Amino acid sequence: MRYIVGIDIGGTNIVVGTVAEDGSELLGLVSAPTISEQGAEAVLDRIVKLARASMEAARGKEIAGVGIGSPGPLDTKTGVVLLTPNLGWTNYPLRDRLTQALGKPATLDNDANCAIFGEWWRGAARGADHVVGLTIGTGIGGGIVLSGAIYRGASDIAGEIGHMTIDAMGRRCKCGNYGCLEAYASGPAIAARAVEGIEAGVDTSLPRYVQGDMSKITAQVVYEAAHDGDDFALEVVKDTARFLGAGVANIINVFNPQVVVICGGVTLAGDRLFVPLRSEVKRRAFKPAVDVCRIVPGELTGTAGVYGAAAVFIQRTWGRV
Amino acid sequence: MRYIVGIDIGGTNIVVGTVAEDGSELLGLVSAPTISEQGAEAVLDRIVKLARASMEAARGKEIAGVGIGSPGPLDTKTGVVLLTPNLGWTNYPLRDRLTQALGKPATLDNDANCAIFGEWWRGAARGADHVVGLTIGTGIGGGIVLSGAIYRGASDIAGEIGHMTIDAMGRRCKCGNYGCLEAYASGPAIAARAVEGIEAGVDTSLPRYVQGDMSKITAQVVYEAAHDGDDFALEVVKDTARFLGAGVANIINVFNPQVVVICGGVTLAGDRLFVPLRSEVKRRAFKPAVDVCRIVPGELTGTAGVYGAAAVFIQRTWGRV
Repeated sequence: MRYIVGIDIGGTNIVVGTVAEDGSELLGLVSAPTISEQGAEAVLDRIVKLARASMEAARGKEIAGVGIGSPGPLDTKTGVVLLTPNLGWTNYPLRDRLTQALGKPATLDNDANCAIFGEWWRGAARGADHVVGLTIGTGIGGGIVLSGAIYRGASDIAGEIGHMTIDAMGRRCKCGNYGCLEAYASGPAIAARAVEGIEAGVDTSLPRYVQGDMSKITAQVVYEAAHDGDDFALEVVKDTARFLGAGVANIINVFNPQVVVICGGVTLAGDRLFVPLRSEVKRRAFKPAVDVCRIVPGELTGTAGVYGAAAVFIQRTWGRV
Repeated sequence: MRYIVGIDIGGTNIVVGTVAEDGSELLGLVSAPTISEQGAEAVLDRIVKLARASMEAARGKEIAGVGIGSPGPLDTKTGVVLLTPNLGWTNYPLRDRLTQALGKPATLDNDANCAIFGEWWRGAARGADHVVGLTIGTGIGGGIVLSGAIYRGASDIAGEIGHMTIDAMGRRCKCGNYGCLEAYASGPAIAARAVEGIEAGVDTSLPRYVQGDMSKITAQVVYEAAHDGDDFALEVVKDTARFLGAGVANIINVFNPQVVVICGGVTLAGDRLFVPLRSEVKRRAFKPAVDVCRIVPGELTGTAGVYGAAAVFIQRTWGRV
């Protein structure tokens, strides 16, 4: 049995683990904050240290290589990150830098692609032929897995489902487009809607969760208050479900997948999100497509990207997962 | 050289032709109005007569089979049209009925899939690896061709790009969803926007094109007036381009194709549509995806569906096109 180091680079945290080639074991799971403000080289150093720690924990195993998941846009063929403002990388040969530092062959792919590929390999979308997934956090990433392979499109950009317009005349998104799903259903969008409501004077216990400091209202806090039964927080979660529902209905009408898997903190909201989400999708999408599609939370909380990055290495190197 | 009868069944017309297996020849191109009001069997009779006429025109050639493109939803495996209210078919075994009548093996696929597959095989998207297309007429159909095969999804519904929501709180669409692309950019939607403007009293020459009979305003009339320089008609075409632009940008962000091909009467508007459309897409979609994508009108005006239906037969029967 060979092992692969899976590296999941996020804007907030870096997570690394060493995965058996059949996905049956995850060893040496380690993580650290990204602290991108310290610059590109500092982030690289931190990744290398984590990878070494994980390999050390898997001592005695044969480590065949390294799979890297990184924010993009990036070029999977050359292993170069083209531009990741959050991490300070521009045309950065991340794959080759890590190969050099770790002495192992490596592959590079988009972080959301890796997360959804991980869920297809070992998680909630296991074995399905047509899978589309969303990773909801600071932004909304997307991944498409068709017939057991990541669908990357003509230039590695495919799957930007968070930047599907669901409201053509709507809010400007950070990407420059208008009315993107991300502008309505990402973590910060959820928090912003909650703050707007509070400032408009709605009756809610939310301020108590942050000792009155509105800058501390996050999506997480909204889910917590919804869990505790706060009506307004529940309303915000339901609104999110409605926007997400429009996005997921688009996915279903266009891809007709067996599984739509939703990953990220938003899944903490559980049925309070998924029940209205599924009903909104039912209201919007074509019945013969809805009928064959499960809409489910990811199962590999915190490790989907690690599994997926390793799986990309396996597929690119050995041609099968 | 073998030949295949390609049948394109539309709500308004049925078009049939006999296509050489390498796509180099189209013989016996015939068509007739669908007249669906006469009922399902009358429509079938008309299809059979057209197919016989086309085969007769290709007399002496070896006819290997029949490819059928029909409005859906349908089941490509069993060859059954599940429900096509316009044509009066419910769970109708169209493929087997035609096989019986014509004495040839047949295949059935969605009409829009066929049109885009035709454009990939012999038209504007020839040879591209990732192709997404729209057929704009009474409705908006969609087709996805990846690595030389129609992408059908888990239950043959994939590609319903006209029913992508681009305005979550927007107009109700015939499909039951809200704010579908089809509700803004189909032929009837274009005509409706023109009529609304006229009724609101805008200065336009449009009424003269229809002798003052507003019920005769069609998208076609709007393109004609735009062509003749009518400012309001030009404005309606530009609005259409903006809505279409949101839809095409979604396609580009999600599929990252080399070609988006747009078929149907709307292409008559030419640069008056495509110039603002491309600029809207540029404004909305990710640059590295826009940079690799051509947005072009279909080349096989009136015959894309015939070529594509034949190509589906070829691929299903002989495994290659």
